[in-house]
Amino acid sequence: MIDEVEVIGVGMHPFGRFSDSSLKDLARVATVQALTDAGIGTRDIDVVYSSNAMGGMLQGQEMVRGQAVMREVGIERIPIVNVENACAGGSTALRQAILEIAAGAAEIVLAVGFEKMFVNDRTRTLDALQSAADVDVVRGAGLQFTAVYGMRLRKMLAEGTIRGEDLVEVSVKSHACGALNPYAQHQKEVTPEEVRAAPMIADPLTLLMTSSICDGAAAVVVARRGALKVDRPRVRFRSSRGASGFTPLPEGQPTLSEQNVTAAYEAAGLGPGDVDVAEVHDAMAPAELLAYEQLGFCEKGGAGALLAAGTTSITGAKPVNPSGGLSSRGHPVGATGLAQIAELTWQLRGEAGARQVGNEPRIALAHNSGGWLEGESAANNIHILERIDSWT
Amino acid sequence: MIDEVEVIGVGMHPFGRFSDSSLKDLARVATVQALTDAGIGTRDIDVVYSSNAMGGMLQGQEMVRGQAVMREVGIERIPIVNVENACAGGSTALRQAILEIAAGAAEIVLAVGFEKMFVNDRTRTLDALQSAADVDVVRGAGLQFTAVYGMRLRKMLAEGTIRGEDLVEVSVKSHACGALNPYAQHQKEVTPEEVRAAPMIADPLTLLMTSSICDGAAAVVVARRGALKVDRPRVRFRSSRGASGFTPLPEGQPTLSEQNVTAAYEAAGLGPGDVDVAEVHDAMAPAELLAYEQLGFCEKGGAGALLAAGTTSITGAKPVNPSGGLSSRGHPVGATGLAQIAELTWQLRGEAGARQVGNEPRIALAHNSGGWLEGESAANNIHILERIDSWT
Repeated sequence: MIDEVEVIGVGMHPFGRFSDSSLKDLARVATVQALTDAGIGTRDIDVVYSSNAMGGMLQGQEMVRGQAVMREVGIERIPIVNVENACAGGSTALRQAILEIAAGAAEIVLAVGFEKMFVNDRTRTLDALQSAADVDVVRGAGLQFTAVYGMRLRKMLAEGTIRGEDLVEVSVKSHACGALNPYAQHQKEVTPEEVRAAPMIADPLTLLMTSSICDGAAAVVVARRGALKVDRPRVRFRSSRGASGFTPLPEGQPTLSEQNVTAAYEAAGLGPGDVDVAEVHDAMAPAELLAYEQLGFCEKGGAGALLAAGTTSITGAKPVNPSGGLSSRGHPVGATGLAQIAELTWQLRGEAGARQVGNEPRIALAHNSGGWLEGESAANNIHILERIDSWT
Repeated sequence: MIDEVEVIGVGMHPFGRFSDSSLKDLARVATVQALTDAGIGTRDIDVVYSSNAMGGMLQGQEMVRGQAVMREVGIERIPIVNVENACAGGSTALRQAILEIAAGAAEIVLAVGFEKMFVNDRTRTLDALQSAADVDVVRGAGLQFTAVYGMRLRKMLAEGTIRGEDLVEVSVKSHACGALNPYAQHQKEVTPEEVRAAPMIADPLTLLMTSSICDGAAAVVVARRGALKVDRPRVRFRSSRGASGFTPLPEGQPTLSEQNVTAAYEAAGLGPGDVDVAEVHDAMAPAELLAYEQLGFCEKGGAGALLAAGTTSITGAKPVNPSGGLSSRGHPVGATGLAQIAELTWQLRGEAGARQVGNEPRIALAHNSGGWLEGESAANNIHILERIDSWT
């Protein structure tokens, strides 16, 4: 059933710092762009799934976040469902939208994610970010994301499966892509020297390797096959998989991400070799290297070589994060998973402008991960998309 | 497809004030009871939908609320999705669970709702409750739920479609049911004199007409037909409908609740006359009277007479809120919609003990409403359940 669900419209509010825009402003811009892209109106939407991660703690708006936003757009009289799943909330909203159609309960569904992380007091944003883990655990430990990534990378450096220069080079690549993306938060190339010399955040991560506090929104409209006729390449789903975990498995066992992507490939009847372009969850730029391994793009320890060969650059055979990824395009938590789908849809349609990948992609993969509990992701979602010329 | 989804287990943590129990404790008790009732283990669950409304603002736990709780129960490696929809979050989680099965993506799904509203500072709870509306609107107005219900009832009193004594009598009925329910927050009968003499909260509502700040949890396990064999009456779904609204419609037009229940009846091929027992959203006890009209149990203006005739009492022909409803059983926001399903499942199976209704119910209706935007509910969910002796 899932392969009879297609993306009919995508939209984004640019990611960055927008002090004069409310959460509603951000979501409205993304939603209207997605509706316009689909060529439909507000009355055509059957159901809305809304993703926001920090509105309760930062804006004091829990409970009816999506309704408060859709009110501004004029969408009502239909189910509006609020989901959250930390940094994977956007792809969770998408998965629910796909399920709604697969269940036969709707024809056209909007998934929208929005986040406003810039508030008057930065410590409030950092506190809210802690709630991506079990707060009973992390409050005591004082841990947060950057430190967790840093420790994981230190282990890999010690084991020799990654080199310090790989961390620098992947960050340079991220910023080079962001520089081509008008929706990106960071649109400026950086040199290896600048990455190395940037302030140390959590050894070995420097400031230019990390994602930033960010405002933004993204929206995706999905529909049942045949619900809408369009005169352009179509993008349909081949897989939509979610998973959560907390128990770190014994060394050598597949991680949650690895298990989940294997299941996603299996459901699609595809393998890593089939993926032409991917957007992966690089909350820290070097996490892109971890993703190469998790997604099967290379063997363990082969990420640095894959990067160095240029395979994953925009002009390579398997471009990864042409948008700039979380690190350069930006990572407004609840919107990120849907921004990945917007980017991949543009790439599959050949509409990505200066950052259009060069390999005429047919299969795309989105990897969105959220939160952490002990050694694993609290939420991990994989979507595989396919460009088709028409429904046959 | 929806009528091939059944309830295989239900559980509750008693509602009330539990200062020594964490949010996790509450959810664990309800979940384990539901799994035990279903006769399954944690590994049998394919997907979890978690509902919590105020954890971000009251416990500082947004983003991964369900994961933090499921970790305590030992459920992982599956999708865990966090939903919120104000006071209708529980039934929203249920609807998602049903859709997941209807989409063919899972066999057995857990929906769990939990809330801890008692915190050290009551004004924090009241602030959090404001976020059930668009906070940009209500913060300016200083409005909250009790006042909105009060104004609506004042209008009905002025129009003469309801009498002051009806408000008193329905509250007495609510407490009489709660007194029979070991899961209820308020387990004490009250006299009409006590209701009238209670402190005025929002004219015409006195304290004994309102629901209270409350802790609690409820869980429901649903499964595809045939996933599990049980030797007892089965409870399946006939309808699962959601809707959201903000525009008050012109006088005489059906309200959102009315539109939604009409659609739910239509999907089930049933009408109000078929309903044998109902749990309705009486955040203020007199709202039960509004529900009689909205659900078609009586004509406009006929609610008082229906109540006075005893039709909706436990021993009547169409019992409503045998649990005591939100006002007496209690209303821990994210759990309420699932507590309604637990109660109706017990009633349909004949397992409701002292509060078992006397009409051997076959069709049950749950009406759960959440939040408000201008004149309408931000979320309104209707579920219709049916007792069947076996799958034929």
